[in-house]
Amino acid sequence: MDKRVAVYRKEHFNAAHRLFNPAWNNEDNARVFGKCSNPNYHGHNYELVVKITGAPAADTGFVIDLKELSDIVKEYVLNKMDHKNLNLDVPEFKNINPTVENISIIIYELLRKKIDSNLDLMVRVYETPRNFAEYPVA
Amino acid sequence: MDKRVAVYRKEHFNAAHRLFNPAWNNEDNARVFGKCSNPNYHGHNYELVVKITGAPAADTGFVIDLKELSDIVKEYVLNKMDHKNLNLDVPEFKNINPTVENISIIIYELLRKKIDSNLDLMVRVYETPRNFAEYPVA
Amino acid sequence: MDKRVAVYRKEHFNAAHRLFNPAWNNEDNARVFGKCSNPNYHGHNYELVVKITGAPAADTGFVIDLKELSDIVKEYVLNKMDHKNLNLDVPEFKNINPTVENISIIIYELLRKKIDSNLDLMVRVYETPRNFAEYPVA
Amino acid sequence: MDKRVAVYRKEHFNAAHRLFNPAWNNEDNARVFGKCSNPNYHGHNYELVVKITGAPAADTGFVIDLKELSDIVKEYVLNKMDHKNLNLDVPEFKNINPTVENISIIIYELLRKKIDSNLDLMVRVYETPRNFAEYPVA
Amino acid sequence: MDKRVAVYRKEHFNAAHRLFNPAWNNEDNARVFGKCSNPNYHGHNYELVVKITGAPAADTGFVIDLKELSDIVKEYVLNKMDHKNLNLDVPEFKNINPTVENISIIIYELLRKKIDSNLDLMVRVYETPRNFAEYPVA
Amino acid sequence: MDKRVAVYRKEHFNAAHRLFNPAWNNEDNARVFGKCSNPNYHGHNYELVVKITGAPAADTGFVIDLKELSDIVKEYVLNKMDHKNLNLDVPEFKNINPTVENISIIIYELLRKKIDSNLDLMVRVYETPRNFAEYPVA
Repeated sequence: MDKRVAVYRKEHFNAAHRLFNPAWNNEDNARVFGKCSNPNYHGHNYELVVKITGAPAADTGFVIDLKELSDIVKEYVLNKMDHKNLNLDVPEFKNINPTVENISIIIYELLRKKIDSNLDLMVRVYETPRNFAEYPVA
Repeated sequence: MDKRVAVYRKEHFNAAHRLFNPAWNNEDNARVFGKCSNPNYHGHNYELVVKITGAPAADTGFVIDLKELSDIVKEYVLNKMDHKNLNLDVPEFKNINPTVENISIIIYELLRKKIDSNLDLMVRVYETPRNFAEYPVA
Repeated sequence: MDKRVAVYRKEHFNAAHRLFNPAWNNEDNARVFGKCSNPNYHGHNYELVVKITGAPAADTGFVIDLKELSDIVKEYVLNKMDHKNLNLDVPEFKNINPTVENISIIIYELLRKKIDSNLDLMVRVYETPRNFAEYPVA
Repeated sequence: MDKRVAVYRKEHFNAAHRLFNPAWNNEDNARVFGKCSNPNYHGHNYELVVKITGAPAADTGFVIDLKELSDIVKEYVLNKMDHKNLNLDVPEFKNINPTVENISIIIYELLRKKIDSNLDLMVRVYETPRNFAEYPVA
Repeated sequence: MDKRVAVYRKEHFNAAHRLFNPAWNNEDNARVFGKCSNPNYHGHNYELVVKITGAPAADTGFVIDLKELSDIVKEYVLNKMDHKNLNLDVPEFKNINPTVENISIIIYELLRKKIDSNLDLMVRVYETPRNFAEYPVA
Repeated sequence: MDKRVAVYRKEHFNAAHRLFNPAWNNEDNARVFGKCSNPNYHGHNYELVVKITGAPAADTGFVIDLKELSDIVKEYVLNKMDHKNLNLDVPEFKNINPTVENISIIIYELLRKKIDSNLDLMVRVYETPRNFAEYPVA
C-alpha cells in the first residue's frame, strides 16, 4: 500500500541566546536587534515540532516509532541545546545568528542525517507562542 | 470568484486502545509496542481536526457550514469512536492496528464519502498534545 | 544562499459581528445562519496568525523582522478591527459577510500590499479555538 | 466519609458587549472605558469555569455528575448569554455594566439557586486568556 | 525567614477506565454512568498537577526541588497508572470507582506519605481540559 | 455593596538566568542545581499572573482597571526583567537565587507598593508550563 501520512512529535528545550551578528559591533547589533541583543542574554522555552512523512509500515502501522523519534531528538538536539546558551555553548551558532529561522535550519540539518532518507523531514520551532518558524518550506 | 480557502473544525473524543498486531503473540507485541500494548488497554483524549478546502459560496461566504461539518463528524466518527475501545468496539480496527497514523486514515475514509467531492479533505488526529498525525499528505 | 523558511507571528483582536447577507431579510439570515445572525451581534476573541515565507537575510538571519511584521499587522489590521463591530465599523465588510473565510481573505488583501512582494504571505484566522480558516491555499 | 473534593466544569460562550455606565453619557464612557466602550460593541469568546465543592457520594464517587452540571450551565447560563449581546439581550445587565467582574457575579447568582445548597459554588470567567475574574472569593 | 510559597509541578499519564460500581450490575452502571460505563473501557490523557506549600530554604531558594518532586510522582503515581487500565491494573481502584474525584484522593494519599510532613500537599487531576478535580479543599 | 471579586491579568517576559548560590563554588552549585546552573545561563518564557482581590466599584464595575494593572506591571516588572539576565541585570537577584519561588516573592514585593492597600495581591509565575509558583499563600 502507498498511503503517505505525516506524524509529528513535539519536544521542548530551555535556552539563553542573544541576537548578534559577530561581524558588527554591539551598537550596530543593538540598533538592528533591539532588546533581543542584550549582551547579557535573555532566553526562551523553545517548543520543537518534528514532522516526518512516509508510508506506515504494514506490520506496525508506524511511519516511524514516535518513541524512537523522541530519542533521536533528545540525543542529537536536546542534549546539545537544552539548558544551554545557544551563542556560547552550541558550536553550530558560532558564526550564525540564533534567530528562530536559523535555529530551525540548524535543527533540520542535525536531524536530517539521523532520519531514514526515505522519510521526509520538516522542523518547526516556537521561540514564543507568538513567534515561530518552519524549515524547509514545501 | 475563484478564491480557495481552507476551513478547520476541531472535535474531540475519548477512547481506549492498545497497539496490537493480531498476527503476533502478546510477547512480540510487547517487544515492539512496549507499554502501549498493555493487554488491559490504556486510553487518550483524542483531538480531531478536519480541514476542508474549497471556494466560499458567494451568498453565504462559507466553504462549508462548520455547524454542518460538526454534525457530520459527530454522526460518522464520534458516535463510532467516542467513549469506546477502538480495538474491540470499532470494526474498522479489527484487523488494523489503531496507531495515530491508522486512526487518521480510517477517519479520513469515513468522512471522505460524506463530504462533497468538490471539496478537499484532510484529517489531523492528536493522540496526545505531543504525538499527532495527518492524512492525506499534500 | 537559497534556503526558504516560513516565519509566523500571532496577534489577536476582539470584535463583534453577525453573519448577515444584506441581500436577504432577517428571517432568511436567521434560517441560514442561526444564532450566528443575532441582529444585536455576538463576538469573538479572534486569533490571527500571519505566515511569511522567504530566504533569511545573510546579515540578520531574518526572513522579516517579526517586530516589524507585528507593527504592520497592528497598523493595517488591528487598528481597523480590534474592539470594533466588523459589520458596522469596518468598510471592507459592508457588502461582504464576515465569515471566518471572508475575514481571512480581507486580512490577506490588507497585508499583501504592505509586505515585500518577494515574500509569500498566508493568513490564518481563529474565530474560536475550534473554528478557523486559512487563505490562500497552497 | 467526609472528604471534601472540588470538581470543575469548563464551558464557553460567545457574546458581544460594551463597557457602559448608563448613568453617564457616551463621552464619559469613552473617557473611562476607552475602546471597550465602542457604541457598536465588540465581543469575546468567554470561557466559564464552574467549581463545585462537596463530599463525593459513596455509591457514585461524584461530588456532582459533571454531565448534569454541564446541562444546568447550558440551560441557565449559556441559553441566556451565548451568541447574544450582553447589554441588549440579557436583562440582568440592563443596569449593570458587563465587566468581567459583574459577569462573574451574575453567573454565580444564576447558578447558586440551581445547585444543591450543601455544595459550595465558585465561578471563574475568562474574557480573554489574559483577563479573568472569580467570584466569590474564599 | 518565614515566607510561604506554593510550587506546582505538572505531569501526565494516559489510562483506560470505566465508571463502575462493582456493587451494581452492568445495567445499573449504564443507567447512572451512561457511555462512561462502556464495559470495554474508554480512556483519557490525564494531566496531574501537584501543589506543594512551604517556606523556601535559605540556601537553595526551593520549597522542594521540582526535579525531585517529578521523580517522586513518576515513581509512586505514574509507574502505577501510566498506560494502565485503572479498573484492572491499579489495586487502589479495585473497590473504588475511578471518577476524577476518587483519582485525586488516591493520588493524594499515595504522595502524602512520600512528601515531607512539613509541606502541605494538594493534587489536581484533569480528566479532560473541561473536567477536573482537586483534593484536599482548603 | 460588599461583594469581593478576584481579577487576574496575565503578562509575559523572556529572560535568561542560572540557579546559583553565590556563597557556593561552581561545583557545589552544579551538584545541587544540575543543568539549571550552567555558568553560561539558560532561559525561559516566563508567564506572570497577577491576582487582585477587592469589591468592584459601583460606577465602573472594576475591582481595578485591568489596563491600568497591565501598565503597572509593565512599568515596574517587565521593564526590569523582560529580555534581561535575571542574575546580572536585575539588582534584586544580586544575593537571591532566581528560583521560581524567589521570582514570585520579588515580583510581589515590587507590585505590592504600587497597588492600593485596600486590594489584596497574589502573584503566580510560570517558569515553564510544568513548573510554577505562587506567593503569598492564602
